[in-house]
Amino acid sequence: MTDSESETRYLEDIRERTIDCGEVTVSADDIVKFARQFDPLEIHTDPEAATESRFDGLIASGYHTLSLSVRRLVDEVRSERAVIAGLGIDDVRWHEPVRPGDTLSVETTILETQPSEGDPTTGIVRERISVTNQSGTEVLSLKNRELVERRDTENQGDGR
Amino acid sequence: MTDSESETRYLEDIRERTIDCGEVTVSADDIVKFARQFDPLEIHTDPEAATESRFDGLIASGYHTLSLSVRRLVDEVRSERAVIAGLGIDDVRWHEPVRPGDTLSVETTILETQPSEGDPTTGIVRERISVTNQSGTEVLSLKNRELVERRDTENQGDGR
Repeated sequence: MTDSESETRYLEDIRERTIDCGEVTVSADDIVKFARQFDPLEIHTDPEAATESRFDGLIASGYHTLSLSVRRLVDEVRSERAVIAGLGIDDVRWHEPVRPGDTLSVETTILETQPSEGDPTTGIVRERISVTNQSGTEVLSLKNRELVERRDTENQGDGR
Repeated sequence: MTDSESETRYLEDIRERTIDCGEVTVSADDIVKFARQFDPLEIHTDPEAATESRFDGLIASGYHTLSLSVRRLVDEVRSERAVIAGLGIDDVRWHEPVRPGDTLSVETTILETQPSEGDPTTGIVRERISVTNQSGTEVLSLKNRELVERRDTENQGDGR
C-alpha cells in the first residue's frame, strides 16, 4: 500500500455514525438539462407548462435529486472507502419537490457493517441517506447497501 | 380536453400487463460523462484504472443505468400517462455490471392500480421494471410507485 492510499477505509474502519456530506444548490438550468436527457416530463423540462401543474412551477426529476446526492456521497465518503460496488437501494422516497435555487444538504448514517458470507475479502455496509432542503424539510431518503473490501491479509502492508 | 391530449391514460385506463419500453445502447463516452458528473469513482470514469479493478474494465454507474431506464419508461409509458409524481422506488438491485457497448432492453409490468385513500382525483400505480442486456441477463430490477390522475368528473370532456 502506498502512502497516497493510506486513508482508504476498509470494512473494519467504518464506524456506525452520521456523516455530513455537504451541500449542493440546484439551478433551473441543471433541472432542465438533466430532465431533457433522462426524464423529459414537462414538470421537469418546461418552466411555463410546469406553472399549470399541481406543483405550480418547475421541479427537479427525482432521479436528478438522487444523482446529485450520490455525487455528495462519492466526494465525501465513497472515494475514501474501498468500495467494490453498490448492491442496491431500498425505500427511496421523494417526500417533497425540489425547486430551482434549492440548496440540498446530504447526510448518511452508517447503520451496520458485516462481513460477507462465503467471501473473507469483502463485507457489506448498510446506511440511511437523508437529503434536506434549506428549510430543513427532508426531500429524499433512501437506504443503501454497498460491497466493500475488508482490511485482511491482502491489505495489511504486504506491499500491494 | 383537446384532441392532442386524447390519448392520455388515466388510472382507469391502465391495465395489468407487461410493456416493452425499447432499447438503449450505452457507450464508454456516455458512461464516463455521467460518472464524472454524478458518480466519479475510477471504475466508472477511468478505463485504464478500471482494468485493475475486480470488474476488469469500465462499468456504468448504477445510477446511470437507472436514469437511462427511466428515459425509456418516460418515452414509452409515462409521457402518455397522467403522471402527477413518482412516489418512490423499492428493491433497486444492480444484478450484473453494464459495460460499454451493451444494449439494454427495458420492460415494465403493471402490478396493481388503486385509487388513493382520501383523494378521489388520484390513484397509485405499482409496477416492476426489469432491464436486461443483449445476452438476456437481467442487469437491473426495481419496483416503482407513481401517483396518477383519475379519469373522474374533472377529466370527462368538460372542456378542461
